[in-house]
Amino acid sequence: MLPRGRPRALGAAALLLLLLLIGFLLFGGDLEYGRPREAAARDRDPQTDHRGHNRSDCVLLRPLPAKCELLHVAIVCAGHNSSRDVVTLVKSMLFYRKNPLHLHLVTDTVAKNILETLFHTWMVPAVWVSFHDADELKPKVSWVPNKHYSGLYGLMKLVLPGVLPPALARVVVLDTDVTFASDIAELWALFAHFSGVILLRLDRLRQAGWEQMWKLTAAQELRTLPATSLADQDIFNAVIKGHPALVQPLPCVWNVQLSDHTLAERCYLEVADIKVIHWNSPKKLRVKNKHVEFFRNHYLTFLEYNGNLLRRELFGCPSPPPPEAEQLQQAVAQLNAGDACFEFRLQQLTVPRVHLTFLPHEPPPSRPNDVTLVAQLSMDRLQMLEALCRHWPGPMSLALYLTDAEAQQFLHFVETSAVLSARQDVAYHVVYREGPLYPINQVRNVALAQALTPYVFLSDVDFLPAYSLYDYLRASIEQLELGSRRKAALVVPAFETLHYRFSFPSSKAELLALLDAGSLYTFRYHEWPQGQAPTDYARWREAQAPYRVQWAANYEPYVVVPRDCPRYDPRFVGFGWNKVAHIVELDAQGYELLVLPEAFTIHLPHTPSLDSSRFRSSTTYHDCLQALQDEFHQDLSRHYGAAALKYLTALQQP
Amino acid sequence: MLPRGRPRALGAAALLLLLLLIGFLLFGGDLEYGRPREAAARDRDPQTDHRGHNRSDCVLLRPLPAKCELLHVAIVCAGHNSSRDVVTLVKSMLFYRKNPLHLHLVTDTVAKNILETLFHTWMVPAVWVSFHDADELKPKVSWVPNKHYSGLYGLMKLVLPGVLPPALARVVVLDTDVTFASDIAELWALFAHFSGVILLRLDRLRQAGWEQMWKLTAAQELRTLPATSLADQDIFNAVIKGHPALVQPLPCVWNVQLSDHTLAERCYLEVADIKVIHWNSPKKLRVKNKHVEFFRNHYLTFLEYNGNLLRRELFGCPSPPPPEAEQLQQAVAQLNAGDACFEFRLQQLTVPRVHLTFLPHEPPPSRPNDVTLVAQLSMDRLQMLEALCRHWPGPMSLALYLTDAEAQQFLHFVETSAVLSARQDVAYHVVYREGPLYPINQVRNVALAQALTPYVFLSDVDFLPAYSLYDYLRASIEQLELGSRRKAALVVPAFETLHYRFSFPSSKAELLALLDAGSLYTFRYHEWPQGQAPTDYARWREAQAPYRVQWAANYEPYVVVPRDCPRYDPRFVGFGWNKVAHIVELDAQGYELLVLPEAFTIHLPHTPSLDSSRFRSSTTYHDCLQALQDEFHQDLSRHYGAAALKYLTALQQP
Repeated sequence: MLPRGRPRALGAAALLLLLLLIGFLLFGGDLEYGRPREAAARDRDPQTDHRGHNRSDCVLLRPLPAKCELLHVAIVCAGHNSSRDVVTLVKSMLFYRKNPLHLHLVTDTVAKNILETLFHTWMVPAVWVSFHDADELKPKVSWVPNKHYSGLYGLMKLVLPGVLPPALARVVVLDTDVTFASDIAELWALFAHFSGVILLRLDRLRQAGWEQMWKLTAAQELRTLPATSLADQDIFNAVIKGHPALVQPLPCVWNVQLSDHTLAERCYLEVADIKVIHWNSPKKLRVKNKHVEFFRNHYLTFLEYNGNLLRRELFGCPSPPPPEAEQLQQAVAQLNAGDACFEFRLQQLTVPRVHLTFLPHEPPPSRPNDVTLVAQLSMDRLQMLEALCRHWPGPMSLALYLTDAEAQQFLHFVETSAVLSARQDVAYHVVYREGPLYPINQVRNVALAQALTPYVFLSDVDFLPAYSLYDYLRASIEQLELGSRRKAALVVPAFETLHYRFSFPSSKAELLALLDAGSLYTFRYHEWPQGQAPTDYARWREAQAPYRVQWAANYEPYVVVPRDCPRYDPRFVGFGWNKVAHIVELDAQGYELLVLPEAFTIHLPHTPSLDSSRFRSSTTYHDCLQALQDEFHQDLSRHYGAAALKYLTALQQP
Repeated sequence: MLPRGRPRALGAAALLLLLLLIGFLLFGGDLEYGRPREAAARDRDPQTDHRGHNRSDCVLLRPLPAKCELLHVAIVCAGHNSSRDVVTLVKSMLFYRKNPLHLHLVTDTVAKNILETLFHTWMVPAVWVSFHDADELKPKVSWVPNKHYSGLYGLMKLVLPGVLPPALARVVVLDTDVTFASDIAELWALFAHFSGVILLRLDRLRQAGWEQMWKLTAAQELRTLPATSLADQDIFNAVIKGHPALVQPLPCVWNVQLSDHTLAERCYLEVADIKVIHWNSPKKLRVKNKHVEFFRNHYLTFLEYNGNLLRRELFGCPSPPPPEAEQLQQAVAQLNAGDACFEFRLQQLTVPRVHLTFLPHEPPPSRPNDVTLVAQLSMDRLQMLEALCRHWPGPMSLALYLTDAEAQQFLHFVETSAVLSARQDVAYHVVYREGPLYPINQVRNVALAQALTPYVFLSDVDFLPAYSLYDYLRASIEQLELGSRRKAALVVPAFETLHYRFSFPSSKAELLALLDAGSLYTFRYHEWPQGQAPTDYARWREAQAPYRVQWAANYEPYVVVPRDCPRYDPRFVGFGWNKVAHIVELDAQGYELLVLPEAFTIHLPHTPSLDSSRFRSSTTYHDCLQALQDEFHQDLSRHYGAAALKYLTALQQP
């Protein structure tokens, strides 16, 4: 994956880093490409290269911020694509940082939903995040004519001084399309060195009224120029022009722009220590530049970086972990490493990082009987997605269990697929891999929690539903009056084919013909018939109307239920019993099991996953699963009393 | 994956970094945990934290090496496991480095084979590698009694001054189990600052005779101490004790050891800038230390780091790429980006990084008719390996197409599998993923080139051979006198099952019964019968002796051939025609095709790979494959003249 064009959302701002001292950076520093003049003027070191260059004696002469000083960063972020960009920016910042950070995020609803969950599950020590509602800021900037609706988000940088907490004196403002190549503390140090003076002037600045200043300038620009629109950068430039004393440009190493601009090129050719790379050229990697690979590789490093590795504490800074992380650590500490199920219990306690709606997504319009297909998958099932989209024309909520690098491959896969890119009603949620066992029910719960329709079809990704299923389910829900009358789970009978290629039946009649011809079987007919037996396939053949069936041990049908159904039990990690337990829970809560006479779904052949092969060969795995089942039944008794006894006794029958 | 115990190979040396100035580091520097005393003594900065700590104004006051100065590094490395460690060390070094590097590697045969291929295919700009034969050095150190045979490799650090080129004045000597967290230039700078003085003293040192010095010390130790063995570190310590003026210890940040040693802990708690982490504690990650996660994550960063991203040029240093890289760049520059096959041609020109024998491997004893099973796979077929090991008791050469992170998962998979860990005759070669298309034939060629027996069975990883096949093939080779008489390819008839679980036939009779029962089919009977048709399954049923068959269009049998058979044509990337072209080549070179009457192999069901799904849906893919086939036929004509026409005309028949 190569980085793509900068999202239009944040407009055409060319300045990457705005050091806003709730206003502008004011200092009289004396900079020469980031090196103090003294160093540059110092006698040449005997060690000079053939071109007569000389490396400075010191990487940085400005004092770094005090140990453990909290640094503040503000980012304006809107939409799905910018939310992905922010993650890469934050990873590069965390990789080099040594200080606690407070991120002030100005977000629209989409970005807030994504980033709130992400940071909540990321649990990085010594990182605090607060959100500011971009929608509330719109009226403050919407009077400025702008080329694109989303250009408004760029303009919001102008009102940050009024939005951020009054007590906050300094903040580094970052565009979403930058990558750090150094410690942000070095950037912060540009404040610190002159802090006394600046804070004083800042107060004066505030009294003078920054808000009035930019508004007047913008209004004036609009009067005197024939421009029909103003981006945030246009206004910043105009203010700077009118008040040159207000601003001190950053050394160019802090904004190495990937463009053909010779000035930028001179900057990074002269200076070995590039601090920040700005992906602001519309040409991006097409730029004919021999160093483009350096920039690209640096960017890819953090794009693919395992974000879990950034959950590291700071040296010598008291940085208590987030409360949830602390609870988890205590729970982990209480685990008995000698327990045969130690690995299972550790995996259950692991909270994986979650990136909701990794790709642009349009929520479906609200309809009373609508159904979302819910499923989870990993990289080895990606090739199922196109077929699934052809079979299910309705909304889907899919959770993908991936590494950071795989998430980029997935992105590329969707973007190069005409079928997948055409669908805006499929939400993809990335759950980042962590730990040795597959937390299948945790991943399923992420997909389930993000379904936005009143009903969900709980499927698996290696099943293709009948072409008519989406319409048929909605009609059945209406007909059965599930909305008001009944607490029911609609069973979709499951079949399987053993052939790679096979012509999908277009009706129940065709399906039955294939079944009789031995081209199709009922699902896991050879290996695990009890998983589907209560569906009663013989009755289904003849059925004209929905019929009720009774729960029996090991039953794991594919069902349609209301969105507020019980979650999957996250204790079942790896493979085995993860769906069975969910059906038990539905039955215990009094859901009727109604088999639909025209519904069907077909399992396609695939290689068994690594986790399931492990399951089959390991006795520990079997023993642990038994222990987890016992605990599950104990919990059932606690919740449902004597009524839950039937689940245990059913299992114990021969 | 967590880092494991330090390999015994390099003994128990506790000192990580030996700055050998062809001897020892001599300087009178004035260090306080890496910070110059001036900085420490300076007035406290107004910005101090609540604990009164103060950050130094400067990360480093020593001058960095001149821009583009070549830095020399020496590493002693022996065996498969240390070779893997070296890769992680080198990745961390390359990530931070800004100077050209020359690596002086002292290696045994195994490590040389691995690292030579690795660096040759890695093609990192501005990195030079030279090898020194550890076996030749053994006599120089083998007189020192040592606890373990492989401890000899540690002792070789003592003789480096005599081994490295006489013109080389300075070298940084690294153990294999260290990870950089900073630019090695900062370490090198410890030389540079005092270089004039040191080099002078060095000359005196040389005259004084380092070699005599350590030998005398070692001999004396052996006389006066009851020790029965001496590791390299024992000798270094003894020399230092006897000649304290010879050595200046490195600031502790350059050797942050993961142990319970309080000194080390004080070092890294006081100093924010850790430079090098040394994984020398036998307890490793079990150490009760709240910062262990920091160390672990830093290590995992480079363990999993995509090494391809380190192929970046240096800024402003004239660093011509290796000649092969230059040729490739020219070939890439000549590609026409408008060509529909551009992506294919780019993939063909990509040289993937190769790590041979990623895991310990014992070459099979030399036997005249021995056969190696050759195959390639990616992550999604890993679960086939155990079954394959059960079916094929002979040597195997397997190439795995993986990312760096996947290679670690693979390692974990093998280490936790009793079946796989028990096999020393299976060589695993990692080919690192690069580019969008699967270079299947390049990967196969890596496995083929590493087969060490006179014959190879060219298989695919989703096939399980008859349990008797290994013995039967060797008997057949002997009986058919392939060694002397015939140029032949022995055909192993291929079948397939469509069931996940299935009871593997133990004889041809059982196989035929399953075939008749419809539980087995001939391979791709439904989808692509022409791929196996010339094998003539009807004849095979009845055959008692090997029989010859004629080539026909699209034939792609599984064959046993001499190791020096033609390579696979690397132009076929992605899927389609990759094996067909190889069989054409065999036929063109006059290999007889002999079907073996008792041989068989069975394909297990699996999900189609991502690449093959792409192939099936894309017309560009089809068109390109056609273009590649045309070019292949043109090349055939060039090589084999009019005789090759038959391959083209055979295809054109309806």
